[in-house]
Amino acid sequence: MEFSSKLLERAVNEMSQLPGIGKRTALRLVLHMLKQPKTQIQALSEALQSMRNDIKFCKSCNNISDVDVCEICANPHRNEKIICVVEDIRDVMAIENTSSFKGLYHVLGGKISPMDGVGPHDLNIESLVHKVKEGQVEELIFALSSTMEGDTTNFYIYKQIQAYNVQTSTIARGISVGDELEYADEVTLGRSIVNRIPFETSLKS
Amino acid sequence: MEFSSKLLERAVNEMSQLPGIGKRTALRLVLHMLKQPKTQIQALSEALQSMRNDIKFCKSCNNISDVDVCEICANPHRNEKIICVVEDIRDVMAIENTSSFKGLYHVLGGKISPMDGVGPHDLNIESLVHKVKEGQVEELIFALSSTMEGDTTNFYIYKQIQAYNVQTSTIARGISVGDELEYADEVTLGRSIVNRIPFETSLKS
Repeated sequence: MEFSSKLLERAVNEMSQLPGIGKRTALRLVLHMLKQPKTQIQALSEALQSMRNDIKFCKSCNNISDVDVCEICANPHRNEKIICVVEDIRDVMAIENTSSFKGLYHVLGGKISPMDGVGPHDLNIESLVHKVKEGQVEELIFALSSTMEGDTTNFYIYKQIQAYNVQTSTIARGISVGDELEYADEVTLGRSIVNRIPFETSLKS
Repeated sequence: MEFSSKLLERAVNEMSQLPGIGKRTALRLVLHMLKQPKTQIQALSEALQSMRNDIKFCKSCNNISDVDVCEICANPHRNEKIICVVEDIRDVMAIENTSSFKGLYHVLGGKISPMDGVGPHDLNIESLVHKVKEGQVEELIFALSSTMEGDTTNFYIYKQIQAYNVQTSTIARGISVGDELEYADEVTLGRSIVNRIPFETSLKS
């Protein structure tokens, strides 16, 4: 792609470094910005920079926060004995949206994935094991995605904490609410039958 | 969407103002940025700001440029008597990529579109008509997209310059090279038959 302006080219190159944004999309976005007021581009730049420079990670759960300990961890009404282990902050937001969990979270920051060069020591596993060792935790809920990497990570953590007195559970896998059975994949359908729950229980949720 | 950090929320809100980028995509991009070195985010911010603040539009053709007169207009080897009228700078880049045009361009900056509140006076039509009036132009090539708005714009300009001694043409509409006839739409196929060209001519291009 040949540009008539170095400034334009630089802006397009920088934008196209973002994931999922190619040169054409970057050009479209950048040309849109040219039509916006200067103040708006300044606001965008400042927001990105101050986020990158000033954002903090909660000392306890590694969630993104503006203060040292995030709102969830600092909330005295939440049950600190139950910890939900998630991959990243988007999962925290998704679970919080359901309003069905009143414990705390622990954000790993990824999954063990040797193919991508991510080992256990690149994730926040040590601090989680530490919490368990200290006897602060009654139940760990594994809420990682159900992939090979997610399962590996679950199992790795499980091995580390097995010796301590802590319950472990994983979120239920099954047919999504509203889904047709005939379109479900075999593994999910099979698991949903093996892990069936009493009908009375299903009436309550 | 509830955010655990105001800084994050602000960054997501600013990013999601860009066209085609919703809150979820913005969050994904912003979380990606958090994992990048601070210098990279700074480079992105600076590139966007300096582009928005310092970029110029060519005085002659309205193309984006770093200097007052763009490279194309300043090139003495190009034929200044032939002007290709396009909608925006992306069209200039697309035509330049083909290396088949050696005249100059005139970038309108949009199409006449009453539905979107864009009238003739919002576009760079006046300066084009001025060029024609001064007798600087021998041929105008209309290369706008073949939509109602494009046709309206073509016709508006044509009416303005009709009285002067200038040839006008539009780019050829027809079946794309490599396309199967059976999948072409009727209008395109019909036009391609009405506007057929001598076989000898087609051998040369």
